Amino acid sequence: MSRYLTPTLAGLSPYTPGEQPQDQQYIKLNTNESPYPPSPAVTAAVNAAEVEKLRLYSDPACARLLKAAAEYHGLTPDEIMPGNGSDENLFFALRAFCDEAHPLACADVTYGCYSVWCNLMHIPSHIIPLEEDFSIDPARYHGLNKTIVIANPNAPTGLALSPSAIEGILQANPDNVVIVDEAYVDFGAGSCVPLIHRYKNLLVVQTFSKSRQLAGARLGLAMGDAELIADLNRVKFSLNPYNINRLTLLAGEASLRDKGYFEATRQKIMDTRAWTAKELEKRGFALTDSRANFLFARTDRMEGGALYRALKEKGILVRHFDSPRIAEYLRITIGTPEQMEALVRALDELLEG
Amino acid sequence: MSRYLTPTLAGLSPYTPGEQPQDQQYIKLNTNESPYPPSPAVTAAVNAAEVEKLRLYSDPACARLLKAAAEYHGLTPDEIMPGNGSDENLFFALRAFCDEAHPLACADVTYGCYSVWCNLMHIPSHIIPLEEDFSIDPARYHGLNKTIVIANPNAPTGLALSPSAIEGILQANPDNVVIVDEAYVDFGAGSCVPLIHRYKNLLVVQTFSKSRQLAGARLGLAMGDAELIADLNRVKFSLNPYNINRLTLLAGEASLRDKGYFEATRQKIMDTRAWTAKELEKRGFALTDSRANFLFARTDRMEGGALYRALKEKGILVRHFDSPRIAEYLRITIGTPEQMEALVRALDELLEG
Repeated sequence: MSRYLTPTLAGLSPYTPGEQPQDQQYIKLNTNESPYPPSPAVTAAVNAAEVEKLRLYSDPACARLLKAAAEYHGLTPDEIMPGNGSDENLFFALRAFCDEAHPLACADVTYGCYSVWCNLMHIPSHIIPLEEDFSIDPARYHGLNKTIVIANPNAPTGLALSPSAIEGILQANPDNVVIVDEAYVDFGAGSCVPLIHRYKNLLVVQTFSKSRQLAGARLGLAMGDAELIADLNRVKFSLNPYNINRLTLLAGEASLRDKGYFEATRQKIMDTRAWTAKELEKRGFALTDSRANFLFARTDRMEGGALYRALKEKGILVRHFDSPRIAEYLRITIGTPEQMEALVRALDELLEG
Repeated sequence: MSRYLTPTLAGLSPYTPGEQPQDQQYIKLNTNESPYPPSPAVTAAVNAAEVEKLRLYSDPACARLLKAAAEYHGLTPDEIMPGNGSDENLFFALRAFCDEAHPLACADVTYGCYSVWCNLMHIPSHIIPLEEDFSIDPARYHGLNKTIVIANPNAPTGLALSPSAIEGILQANPDNVVIVDEAYVDFGAGSCVPLIHRYKNLLVVQTFSKSRQLAGARLGLAMGDAELIADLNRVKFSLNPYNINRLTLLAGEASLRDKGYFEATRQKIMDTRAWTAKELEKRGFALTDSRANFLFARTDRMEGGALYRALKEKGILVRHFDSPRIAEYLRITIGTPEQMEALVRALDELLEG
């Protein structure tokens, strides 16, 4: 830290992304990427003629992408705002709806960035512990009088609340925004997007990183009442008006229009998840009922950190969080069937006897 | 504005980007884009095989891009941080080095985002008026005891300070960061990058949007002492760790490695600027001595806003700022020779008699 850093940032605890090794071949099951490439429509849309147009700024209004997203989700374009990854959407939302006097409520075990953003913006956080089995008790979120963020399905547990449970939370907090982070929703949970026209305090955030195979393009969507979206645009146009690059706008649009590929690939992930869960259960692992593109698993036979390191030595990267309550667990991204067979073989070798 | 927006943002005045018409053919001389496509090396690097890899996150450390940038600029990778456009670099810098108790000093006529960011982050701004001829008097920046940002060349005036004048400002403010925004430096001004190893309080920000034909890719670089860059990375990893997408990282690296194309295209812009300036002077326009890829020009024969609208009707977009001191002026991006000939013809038609 230099002597020029503002003292108000001295206590920052930046987020630690999962390892992104650039130089070695791992079976990479640690950052919830898709094992499948983007839709061929994306490859067709991001072509050499479009690369040449990079000399021109991107459309700050993102009109074509918004049109495709609106058609896909049954919304109007002014009910949607794209972000440079859903992380940016979530950051904009916290900037818009929280401040030093307006806290954020979230779970103790959830996506790590929420607390990092609170720290950066000096937003007090109101931590609501998950139940013993990692589930969320919706009643604990009623009448909070605070902005709320719920990852649904939650990370890294994979557990999902029903949209009707979230509807209860929306009704019980009419004076506060409830942000539902649906990064993993396409793998078997129910989306709250259909509730948007009924609740002015609902903001749904989705990402193209998981079910749309575009982690490296950086694209997310915030969806909600047009007034909420206008608030987010006030922040965007005060921070980085050209936040999405041209090629990502094209990739996102093409992905939204290829419904067949989206449906086929998310189904493959869910099938592979079911197979992998069964194999792990056969071997005595304890698993949550994950509705995400990862499993959250522990075994009595080896401590989480040790198993993470042993798998890494065998060329398989998974994610281990050295955090209270979850240090025994591994978060294992669902890869191809072949990758998951390799994982199961490696576990058999490590845990045999 | 929704009733949920935090009251501390009620006074926001978001930035208004230049028009980006998506549906009509204008001669577009309003947002300082390059009239030339990116280097063929960029088109080669952003290929279909790389689009397929979008399923993977980008490298949050941006290692390959940093290596190329370090080689180009004679720095080490830890003295550089890429941003999602130089706007993001500048925002990170203001977040790191200013706060409610640590003001920012900048000119009255300069890049509009500085005051927008101050507004967003409640940073008091200390405004230092330009001289009557729009030049900056460096002595006015001595001993300020505030973080300083200077666009060099300045926008929208195009006027440049010498690196030695900026060196004087650095020496006279050893306890504060001096940010030099070199968005336009490649078109004939002197860069402060060679001063980085001598001044720990110098942060230089450059962009790939103008001289590298990558406005639509969104890429900028902040360069300075490794401790300053570490501060910026604390902000980045607390806000959006994967801030640069995969294809932009590749485009930036390829652009940095094709020095010949960079030199040839910036020279063409400077030549066309000289031709255009001469033609406008012949017609009685008053011009600043622009070292940027635009001219800043006024005529007694038509008010700035009227001339902007008249040119737009003729299919030529330029930028007019309806702001104190500069409302008489137009900012005209340098296009191809053919585009500038069309501009001159249009001016002759509009101003004849």
